[in-house]
Amino acid sequence: MTSPRRAPGGFPVVGIIGGGQLARMCQPPAVGLSITLSVLAESADDSAALVVPSSPVGDHTDLETVRAFASECDVVTFDDEQVPAEVLAALEADGVVLHPSPAALLFAQDKLAMRRRLTDIGVACPRWAQVRDTDSLQTFGDQAGWPVVVKKPRGGYDGKAVRVVGSPQEVADWFADVRLADGLLAEEKVDFVRELALVVVRSPSGQAAAWPVVETVQTDGICTQVLAPAPGLDPGLAAVATAASLRIAGELGVTGVMAVELFEVRDPQTGDPAYMVNELAMGPHNSGRWSIDGAVTSQFEQHLRAVLDLPLGDTRPRARWTVMGNVLGGDYPQLYPAYRHLMARDPGLKIHLYGKGVRPGRTIGHVNVSGTDLDDLRARASHATDYLQGAITQ
Amino acid sequence: MTSPRRAPGGFPVVGIIGGGQLARMCQPPAVGLSITLSVLAESADDSAALVVPSSPVGDHTDLETVRAFASECDVVTFDDEQVPAEVLAALEADGVVLHPSPAALLFAQDKLAMRRRLTDIGVACPRWAQVRDTDSLQTFGDQAGWPVVVKKPRGGYDGKAVRVVGSPQEVADWFADVRLADGLLAEEKVDFVRELALVVVRSPSGQAAAWPVVETVQTDGICTQVLAPAPGLDPGLAAVATAASLRIAGELGVTGVMAVELFEVRDPQTGDPAYMVNELAMGPHNSGRWSIDGAVTSQFEQHLRAVLDLPLGDTRPRARWTVMGNVLGGDYPQLYPAYRHLMARDPGLKIHLYGKGVRPGRTIGHVNVSGTDLDDLRARASHATDYLQGAITQ
Repeated sequence: MTSPRRAPGGFPVVGIIGGGQLARMCQPPAVGLSITLSVLAESADDSAALVVPSSPVGDHTDLETVRAFASECDVVTFDDEQVPAEVLAALEADGVVLHPSPAALLFAQDKLAMRRRLTDIGVACPRWAQVRDTDSLQTFGDQAGWPVVVKKPRGGYDGKAVRVVGSPQEVADWFADVRLADGLLAEEKVDFVRELALVVVRSPSGQAAAWPVVETVQTDGICTQVLAPAPGLDPGLAAVATAASLRIAGELGVTGVMAVELFEVRDPQTGDPAYMVNELAMGPHNSGRWSIDGAVTSQFEQHLRAVLDLPLGDTRPRARWTVMGNVLGGDYPQLYPAYRHLMARDPGLKIHLYGKGVRPGRTIGHVNVSGTDLDDLRARASHATDYLQGAITQ
Repeated sequence: MTSPRRAPGGFPVVGIIGGGQLARMCQPPAVGLSITLSVLAESADDSAALVVPSSPVGDHTDLETVRAFASECDVVTFDDEQVPAEVLAALEADGVVLHPSPAALLFAQDKLAMRRRLTDIGVACPRWAQVRDTDSLQTFGDQAGWPVVVKKPRGGYDGKAVRVVGSPQEVADWFADVRLADGLLAEEKVDFVRELALVVVRSPSGQAAAWPVVETVQTDGICTQVLAPAPGLDPGLAAVATAASLRIAGELGVTGVMAVELFEVRDPQTGDPAYMVNELAMGPHNSGRWSIDGAVTSQFEQHLRAVLDLPLGDTRPRARWTVMGNVLGGDYPQLYPAYRHLMARDPGLKIHLYGKGVRPGRTIGHVNVSGTDLDDLRARASHATDYLQGAITQ
């Protein structure tokens, strides 16, 4: 492995395990800050490997590979939450500086651990139970009401490890799977008003900051737009949700950026707006991609600052509204002519593509648009993402 | 030379000859646009080579080196205006797509050619003459008034090839230099109100755009701050100067970004605000560094779009004011602890460092601050640059 080349002047190297788009988007702020990135990639064609000079290819489940990689870095962080626990434990024993720590990362890796901990510290969650068999799931569902959301505690995202079931039989195959011997997470199906997300950041020395609460617009279970800030959000709810998210970061000892996915609900007694935590994710998050163009400090810059224990930057929006549109792969692979068209149509559009091959449904980029007219911004973002996906041709 | 790795989807490779900071600052927008950069660097430690994966090291005055480099690129542009004319001519004969073209680049390389052409197309310039000996300089000075500004037509910037002289004898050594057989450029010393700059961009198909006119604040002949837009600028003068700059770009066949350095003067008859063109520079320019944080589309993104003949982006400011502070090297080389301090003091400061070793007086970075209170922004930018330079320690 070639050593990453440092900038003169005492500047550090931040190692990122995983070469996906979230690592890639750390490179622009790293250039400005004169911080050297080093990415442990799965392939030389990884999204981040295309733009970061030091991108060794190696298996992040192999301890010796990760150890050699980490030995060249001042701090190690993650694009990929799925690094094996035993690898993380060995690195920690070696004295490698890991942010977030394995102890904090656990709460993004294990949904049962997350629910247990959030309940312990009094954060609002959906009703939930750890269920080991069909009988216990039947009991939970009869109390919480059917259908019930059943999740594998570990692995999978974007719906692959989640089922909404009307009876225990619909997850009988999961109960039969020996790898799921710890049981499943059963949750009430929340009757939410909309989905929100909050990105917060915390540094090892305890400084913390939050971006505005955003609305995540979902289509078929995939986040297609983010509206920053969430339009019409009750200011009291925004304050309570922000305080809760910062408290989670502190209680869990999170370092770096953490995203909290929320449901906005109505209090069944009072009808007042309230929240429930849906998911936690460690590191820069899809719901924070608007901040590249929409905030004074983006989540990617902030993550680098936080893991290096540098003072945090201003999280305020640069514009009244920023809309992020998620670009999904469509049926034709040639993106360059499509984006040429969009640039001509909308000179204010900020296009971010990840250097990934097009596959239908794969997240391959995003667009940001900022301004004062939310409806106009949403229409422009929708047009751009539909056009890049090939869903419209003009 | 390893081939630069392209992103899938039909995306191009932009080659940049020269690995300085202006090339480096093209990398963040290239990441977003999924455009691959390839930089012909002088050394593996060059500012841009630290952040661009494809950064072959080679001599940009050697035709075969440049030819091999260019063969891997879809278009070639320049960080360094000083590529020899015979190298450029050979590349052009090979069919390499060069932006700006050698014909346009000439006007940034040769100040006599620039003055002649601008005068031909009726753009306001200081009084000037091509002088080949002390007698002709004496004649010019007696007409235009002493002292006179004398410039070597080629080579040097930041004052190294410029003298302000009270008599022809003060440049007798230049007249004796056989390399200056074409003579020198003599210009009247303009009694200006202040110095302005205008960055414009033009694409091969003729689309053009301009950023707002900025004020460049000079200290000892070095630009220490840029105020964007120029405060209190007469709107009529702004319009006339912008129109003139766009006309220069069109008449000279410029492709990519061009900076026009201007003097703001008063019309001797009417006292009305007027301009004179001081210098032209091709490619992203120091006076446009504010646009990274201060404009919807930065000059660096725009230069990439222009040289690829992609539609141009919106040049409007993101904030009422943006102040750019030029960071000069000072007496101590450890910048990292200094910037840690500044981040704590001013969370809204955007720091851009270039990965260059500190040498007294060398430009090693810049800071941008945006907001509504110009005096406050100027004070913050001054503090940050003074602190990074070591001129103040708190």
